[in-house]
Amino acid sequence: MLAITNCKMEKEVQKILAQFKGKQKSLNYYLAGFVDGEGSFSVAIIKTDMQKFGWAINPCFQVYQHEKHREILEVFKFVFQTGTIYRKSGIHPVLNYSINSMRGITEKVIPFFDKYPLIVKGETYQKFREIVFAMQRKEHSTIGGFKRLVDIAYAMNQQGKGRRRTREEIFSTLPELSTRLPDGQASKH
Amino acid sequence: MLAITNCKMEKEVQKILAQFKGKQKSLNYYLAGFVDGEGSFSVAIIKTDMQKFGWAINPCFQVYQHEKHREILEVFKFVFQTGTIYRKSGIHPVLNYSINSMRGITEKVIPFFDKYPLIVKGETYQKFREIVFAMQRKEHSTIGGFKRLVDIAYAMNQQGKGRRRTREEIFSTLPELSTRLPDGQASKH
Repeated sequence: MLAITNCKMEKEVQKILAQFKGKQKSLNYYLAGFVDGEGSFSVAIIKTDMQKFGWAINPCFQVYQHEKHREILEVFKFVFQTGTIYRKSGIHPVLNYSINSMRGITEKVIPFFDKYPLIVKGETYQKFREIVFAMQRKEHSTIGGFKRLVDIAYAMNQQGKGRRRTREEIFSTLPELSTRLPDGQASKH
Repeated sequence: MLAITNCKMEKEVQKILAQFKGKQKSLNYYLAGFVDGEGSFSVAIIKTDMQKFGWAINPCFQVYQHEKHREILEVFKFVFQTGTIYRKSGIHPVLNYSINSMRGITEKVIPFFDKYPLIVKGETYQKFREIVFAMQRKEHSTIGGFKRLVDIAYAMNQQGKGRRRTREEIFSTLPELSTRLPDGQASKH
């Protein structure tokens, strides 16, 4: 089992997996239900000099849980075979299981939730999925594409409530609308 | 469908149920996962003149959700064929699906969660279940039995954190320890 160093924790996780032995699909439906309650699909827009236009688009899948019940996050990690568990900053002893690599998201998260449907977070997941696939097609490397993905991201999770910056603040830093031509040069619209 | 008067809501619920058509078990596992995130099993101890010893023991199963996603609570109501959905008091627009009748709990809630296991809330559920079965056996009609059930209830959900009264406050109102004799008379220990 991946990165379970604590023996007691490993036993707890093995016990859970044994409950679902031969019922992997049932476990997956259970996990989908759990994510619909305690999970999140988010897309952060982060200031960085490392990316074109000065902003990175970072999709992330997360599941939260009080540290008392780390075992459920270990089950997620076992099922997805990727991701990290860490303590969230702040006073509350909350753990976070997180997958933020594009590979993990495209190879594990999306195939899983395409198969095991979400009810409450279904719409948010569809927007998350659209952004991830658009990024794979490099749509965010044009100003128009980048803006479209920011717009979708800001339509997720309570219309951008709680974000540090408004979409207008982000857009104000961008060059005028342009598209990347096949030879890589930008043309103004 | 029970008590779904809003046509748009009914369509949403039907759409969800159609997704799980022929996969009732999968839906049930999903719901168990959802409850492990957003549900609660609680046992309130409420002051009342209507019950022996002046206290009622009230087990309750609940699922919470923002009012935007009432459909998930309607799915629970459809699957359990009992319970009520109402808005919680307070400023947050949160809905509560609740089953608090002993009949609903013994005939619907317990058979369901005996079959579809909880991971995070498994221990709390076992305490809830123990209290409900003990109440069916009328254990709470003796002082000793009543105290035992209060002790179990106070060991649930963060050891009574957030309760209005301590267990000592409740116990201080009770007559001395006695057991009910078969003829209904109490005998001191």
